[in-house]
Amino acid sequence: MTVFDPVLDPRLAELRDRVRDFVRDEAIPAERELVDSGAEPTEELRRRLQAAAASAGLLSPTAPRRWGGLGLSMSEQAVVLTEAGYSLLGPLALNCAAPDEGNMHLLHRVATPEQQEKYLAPLAGGAVRSCFAMTEPSPGAGSDPSMLRTSAHWDGGAWVVNGRKWYITGADGAAWTICMARTPEHAGSPAGATMFLIDADNPGMRIVRHIDSLDRGFVGGHCEVLFTDCRVPPEAVLGEVGRGFAYAQVRLAPARLTHCMRWLGLAQRAQDMALDRAAEREAFGSRLADLGMAQQMLADNEIDLAASRALIAHAAWLMDRGERASAESSIAKTFVAEAVGRIVDRAVQLHGALGVSHDLPLALFLREVRPFRIYDGASEVHRMSIAKRAVRRRTAARGPQ
Amino acid sequence: MTVFDPVLDPRLAELRDRVRDFVRDEAIPAERELVDSGAEPTEELRRRLQAAAASAGLLSPTAPRRWGGLGLSMSEQAVVLTEAGYSLLGPLALNCAAPDEGNMHLLHRVATPEQQEKYLAPLAGGAVRSCFAMTEPSPGAGSDPSMLRTSAHWDGGAWVVNGRKWYITGADGAAWTICMARTPEHAGSPAGATMFLIDADNPGMRIVRHIDSLDRGFVGGHCEVLFTDCRVPPEAVLGEVGRGFAYAQVRLAPARLTHCMRWLGLAQRAQDMALDRAAEREAFGSRLADLGMAQQMLADNEIDLAASRALIAHAAWLMDRGERASAESSIAKTFVAEAVGRIVDRAVQLHGALGVSHDLPLALFLREVRPFRIYDGASEVHRMSIAKRAVRRRTAARGPQ
Amino acid sequence: MTVFDPVLDPRLAELRDRVRDFVRDEAIPAERELVDSGAEPTEELRRRLQAAAASAGLLSPTAPRRWGGLGLSMSEQAVVLTEAGYSLLGPLALNCAAPDEGNMHLLHRVATPEQQEKYLAPLAGGAVRSCFAMTEPSPGAGSDPSMLRTSAHWDGGAWVVNGRKWYITGADGAAWTICMARTPEHAGSPAGATMFLIDADNPGMRIVRHIDSLDRGFVGGHCEVLFTDCRVPPEAVLGEVGRGFAYAQVRLAPARLTHCMRWLGLAQRAQDMALDRAAEREAFGSRLADLGMAQQMLADNEIDLAASRALIAHAAWLMDRGERASAESSIAKTFVAEAVGRIVDRAVQLHGALGVSHDLPLALFLREVRPFRIYDGASEVHRMSIAKRAVRRRTAARGPQ
Amino acid sequence: MTVFDPVLDPRLAELRDRVRDFVRDEAIPAERELVDSGAEPTEELRRRLQAAAASAGLLSPTAPRRWGGLGLSMSEQAVVLTEAGYSLLGPLALNCAAPDEGNMHLLHRVATPEQQEKYLAPLAGGAVRSCFAMTEPSPGAGSDPSMLRTSAHWDGGAWVVNGRKWYITGADGAAWTICMARTPEHAGSPAGATMFLIDADNPGMRIVRHIDSLDRGFVGGHCEVLFTDCRVPPEAVLGEVGRGFAYAQVRLAPARLTHCMRWLGLAQRAQDMALDRAAEREAFGSRLADLGMAQQMLADNEIDLAASRALIAHAAWLMDRGERASAESSIAKTFVAEAVGRIVDRAVQLHGALGVSHDLPLALFLREVRPFRIYDGASEVHRMSIAKRAVRRRTAARGPQ
Repeated sequence: MTVFDPVLDPRLAELRDRVRDFVRDEAIPAERELVDSGAEPTEELRRRLQAAAASAGLLSPTAPRRWGGLGLSMSEQAVVLTEAGYSLLGPLALNCAAPDEGNMHLLHRVATPEQQEKYLAPLAGGAVRSCFAMTEPSPGAGSDPSMLRTSAHWDGGAWVVNGRKWYITGADGAAWTICMARTPEHAGSPAGATMFLIDADNPGMRIVRHIDSLDRGFVGGHCEVLFTDCRVPPEAVLGEVGRGFAYAQVRLAPARLTHCMRWLGLAQRAQDMALDRAAEREAFGSRLADLGMAQQMLADNEIDLAASRALIAHAAWLMDRGERASAESSIAKTFVAEAVGRIVDRAVQLHGALGVSHDLPLALFLREVRPFRIYDGASEVHRMSIAKRAVRRRTAARGPQ
Repeated sequence: MTVFDPVLDPRLAELRDRVRDFVRDEAIPAERELVDSGAEPTEELRRRLQAAAASAGLLSPTAPRRWGGLGLSMSEQAVVLTEAGYSLLGPLALNCAAPDEGNMHLLHRVATPEQQEKYLAPLAGGAVRSCFAMTEPSPGAGSDPSMLRTSAHWDGGAWVVNGRKWYITGADGAAWTICMARTPEHAGSPAGATMFLIDADNPGMRIVRHIDSLDRGFVGGHCEVLFTDCRVPPEAVLGEVGRGFAYAQVRLAPARLTHCMRWLGLAQRAQDMALDRAAEREAFGSRLADLGMAQQMLADNEIDLAASRALIAHAAWLMDRGERASAESSIAKTFVAEAVGRIVDRAVQLHGALGVSHDLPLALFLREVRPFRIYDGASEVHRMSIAKRAVRRRTAARGPQ
Repeated sequence: MTVFDPVLDPRLAELRDRVRDFVRDEAIPAERELVDSGAEPTEELRRRLQAAAASAGLLSPTAPRRWGGLGLSMSEQAVVLTEAGYSLLGPLALNCAAPDEGNMHLLHRVATPEQQEKYLAPLAGGAVRSCFAMTEPSPGAGSDPSMLRTSAHWDGGAWVVNGRKWYITGADGAAWTICMARTPEHAGSPAGATMFLIDADNPGMRIVRHIDSLDRGFVGGHCEVLFTDCRVPPEAVLGEVGRGFAYAQVRLAPARLTHCMRWLGLAQRAQDMALDRAAEREAFGSRLADLGMAQQMLADNEIDLAASRALIAHAAWLMDRGERASAESSIAKTFVAEAVGRIVDRAVQLHGALGVSHDLPLALFLREVRPFRIYDGASEVHRMSIAKRAVRRRTAARGPQ
Repeated sequence: MTVFDPVLDPRLAELRDRVRDFVRDEAIPAERELVDSGAEPTEELRRRLQAAAASAGLLSPTAPRRWGGLGLSMSEQAVVLTEAGYSLLGPLALNCAAPDEGNMHLLHRVATPEQQEKYLAPLAGGAVRSCFAMTEPSPGAGSDPSMLRTSAHWDGGAWVVNGRKWYITGADGAAWTICMARTPEHAGSPAGATMFLIDADNPGMRIVRHIDSLDRGFVGGHCEVLFTDCRVPPEAVLGEVGRGFAYAQVRLAPARLTHCMRWLGLAQRAQDMALDRAAEREAFGSRLADLGMAQQMLADNEIDLAASRALIAHAAWLMDRGERASAESSIAKTFVAEAVGRIVDRAVQLHGALGVSHDLPLALFLREVRPFRIYDGASEVHRMSIAKRAVRRRTAARGPQ
């Protein structure tokens, strides 16, 4: 079975249809609020939408069943998250948006039972939000994680974190964050990076500001966060000391794939709007749908959508088989981020001036999808990795010459 | 001489340098206000900037000297307007922004002396603003001007205009508009379209709303404007009855070229920011400027800039020789609109998350330039014209087969 | 299972490995002959390679087992034909090249038992070659099949075919052709098109010339073929009279997908050469593999390859489930034809002057893959279909507005 | 005056028209020979065409008048060489093809009067051909000239050259070559590279082979040339010892621009063929010229042609003013090489199967233009230079921060 054919699995088909109805009835109508305010979704909106999703039995599709989620596999997520992404507010409503969705995955994989009880349970239940503090402003860790400057040292039985993070999505209002910091050798652990679970009410953690950004679709915004002598106990360490970069990979590969799923849904929405426009609008004596240049844009959208879906499905299927799929998810992310941008751009173009007006949500989509070519690894960084991996694989396959 | 070498003309070089200094000292600092407010420039800001420009002797570079402008040729405008466009607020400050700049040109070419005195003089002097009401919402005249639905009929010694226009830039606060309406045969004039000069305080003209749009760089916004039994006297006719489509061409060809000049300036600004970033930011052990993929983006920007400049220069030079240059300005518009979008997009990408934040104005540039592929003739409409014209020209050149 | 994971099916994995070894040992060494001659593969070469394939038990992977083939499903073909396509001569060697492979499929689906015995059996066994005569020179049926001009009429108990075909691949030396002709209403069959099986020794069929073409990879060339009062008996009708256009679809959808598989293999070969070059060649103080612009080309190739594979796999999987997959195969064909061209082009570029020399086969690959954007439906024609189908699907899904 | 308006200069307009007629009457008809043979132009064909050009007073438009040429400025060359390039054989016919045209320029600028008499005079007169031996096979000087491995040492009053060159255009049949070799410090000259004029009958110089290449449009082919203890007297040094890299720049900047001019002419030819096809061929009930996707290709060709012309004109104009125009010619070369490839490719696509057949010369054009993205500096190398230059220029303009 592939994710594209939930018809093979009637339960998945039924779930997909329920998500589709929910998105149409609850999420899409709420978008107007976003378009009109030009601001981030409010906490109140989140609570309202998530309550509706909980009533519909659709909350937290990616979270483990044990913590109240639907426990979907990656292939199943590809169906459901794409459907959710059909609205800008769908993933938030279903509690499967970034960064919470990625944090759930990471806690599920790495956290202790006590940490899961304390952090994962309320997150999966929609009681709280969280964030993930890795990226730093220049000259810190951006595209190149090895430039990490936030550090933690061991002092009197506690870790003390110092550093500045930015573009920390959802930080304002989050109950806690996972913070990545450079750590020295410690009690047998190697020097490296360590992830810490830090409660938002820790006096050493401070939200400096909301960064005003092209995209505004994330509740809690993109924030600058300062850690100043932020003391956390040893049990705040997520997993093991010194393994932060490895855990980042655990989080990143699936997280970038779920990003792709959600944005693919939005791209499908843009294309549906373009198809509707093409079927209705006339110019130069024809329906747009019968004009060659419009057909070309519509067809290129179909091709981009199909290739995006196929790349996502393949990577998801590999992950469900237990593989890392780093190469595949990196390729999918790079392609989908660019494809989604092209698709929305063509949909805007097909609408003419209406497309850049906020009478429709397309202009907002344009703003929301642009940063995806930068977030979660800029396209250039992924391409560098993809090329290096390909050269290594080929060189290994050839053996000594 | 070409516009690229004002050194050949010391006066032009000196003018360019003064514009450059003015933009750096007055226009760029004022941009922060736009970025922070997320709103259109205010009338107050316009007045402040234009007063500064007037003091500097730089007001209205495209307006005839007779009306207080600098009376520059198109080739000279290519130098000065590009320099002005280096800031989002430069053209407004110098009173050479759309739509006023195009209206000045049209009035200069078509209006009666009385109309020039009444409308052109205060416009060129920065005392008032104006707008140009041609585009209509679906199913009216958008890409295809032949779908014009606004109409005027002759009734008791006056013209009575009825219709709905939208995306009328600068309408709110404008002293008057030029309105394009379909007219029947009248007193020897053929049926067709006619342009009317309509004062904003005419009770038949009403600003319905500001259309919330992806771009917000125009003072007075993009408005929806309703004409309801709007009565205007015979002397409100601009030029001759029935010649509206011909006058639209008079306005459009140079207006789209001055658009190109201004946006080219902004693209140059984005590239300068990208070059600075590349020279300063390090990643993966190198300056960005030494990384191949960054070099490729920087080089592609240089190429796009050079080709844009050259196409603009060539069309301007033809116009200065008295040619229509419809084909050339259409080609320039199509290329430049797309090139400018690519250039700003690459500059954003080179800045990573900083590029999509409003800490820099780049994200705003991205929003402002996107609609240029739609305004003043969508790229698809220009391509259709370019192709048809090329086929006709070739067929004529071959003669009978 | 997907085609990408033959490891899940040890028999398929084993078959793939044997094809890989065969291609490396037999097909690739024979390519030099093609490169040096600049000519089509000879009949002698075909017989030699197919004899080797038969010895290796690899002949006719797509043909039914009943006729001596391997009877692979489309998903299995995706593995094996891609592997075969790794050499320009691999598909010919395995007897799964166009047009024979498509003809086998069509005969298997549509022909009578007698026709299968007479035509399919020797074709699947490699005893003869065949061709498919549909395309016509201007103003006949090219991109637009409705412009079909070849016609047949019923005369004295026989069909009489008249018309001119061109770009008939493999015609010279083929034992027979399937010829598409316009037919009138006949004995209860509707007017339309009919397919005829015509033996090459029919005096009414004549090979006019080999068309000298950019690509030369097909044995028997691309020929112009003239049918002049070509009489064939009623049993020459393939399937039913008047259903030719429907049968063309039966042939085309899978045939374009197997085309994609084969060319994908060649693209993978080009990429492997590019990876080898990048790992070995130094310039500007680095290995090419460490230069950003080279990495970008290599990564773009990986992305194009992955997306091509995924689109092919998805369409093949649908076909194996009994679906037509017209939309999916059309999308795959359009994307893959363009992707393959890009991949080979980048591989050439990475090799510099060596890439355009015939010291390597890359320049030949460049010539061979270019026409794929035209053959089997030009990209533009596919895009038109893709767009129309999408508009129809969306309009139907929305229901009455 | 710009090159685009020879009407301003009646003599230039008249010259252009004569070249146009000559190309139509002499060069284009001779192309069929090339298409049919698939081989390089023969020496016999060169002599025949150049005799006709000499009769028409059109020989050697770029050579100084003193040596029998027309002594055109770069801007004038832009008119005439583009016109010549309208046929693959036009530049050869007029004796303004590579590499002779570049060698004439270099000798004119650097050679001694004696060298000019001996080498330039017969070259400009069409009596002999020449070549330019710089490029080396891997791991020598390709994209990166600093990897030069051919060397010369001073031995007993003579220079002794050793090394292997390849892709030496026109070597077979050339009367002499300019050979670039690494030289040590010598008699006050610094270590570096030196250019030597070497007669083809020097026993130390040997044509190893014609390299079979994708392009075959150059008489004398692309050859591999071996220098083995090749002794040349001191007066064989072109210019000064140790200044070879500087002279390479003297030759390269204008030579790459004249390349652009010639290929632009061929691209114009391809577009004219596409326009003719679009006006004549029908499909789907319309002329191609009325189908949107065809219009898009035709329009993109017009845009690419216009931008190419404008970039060439600007660089030529700068050179005529005495500037190096390295940046501008590098930008022009990169853009034009890619644009020309796109234009020919689109023209092929618009012709369908006919476009890839050799019934038309388009498929040959496709082969001939592809290497231009590699020759004279691969696009990637130019982009690296363009980016570095831009960063340096910007950094200098900003001054200390």
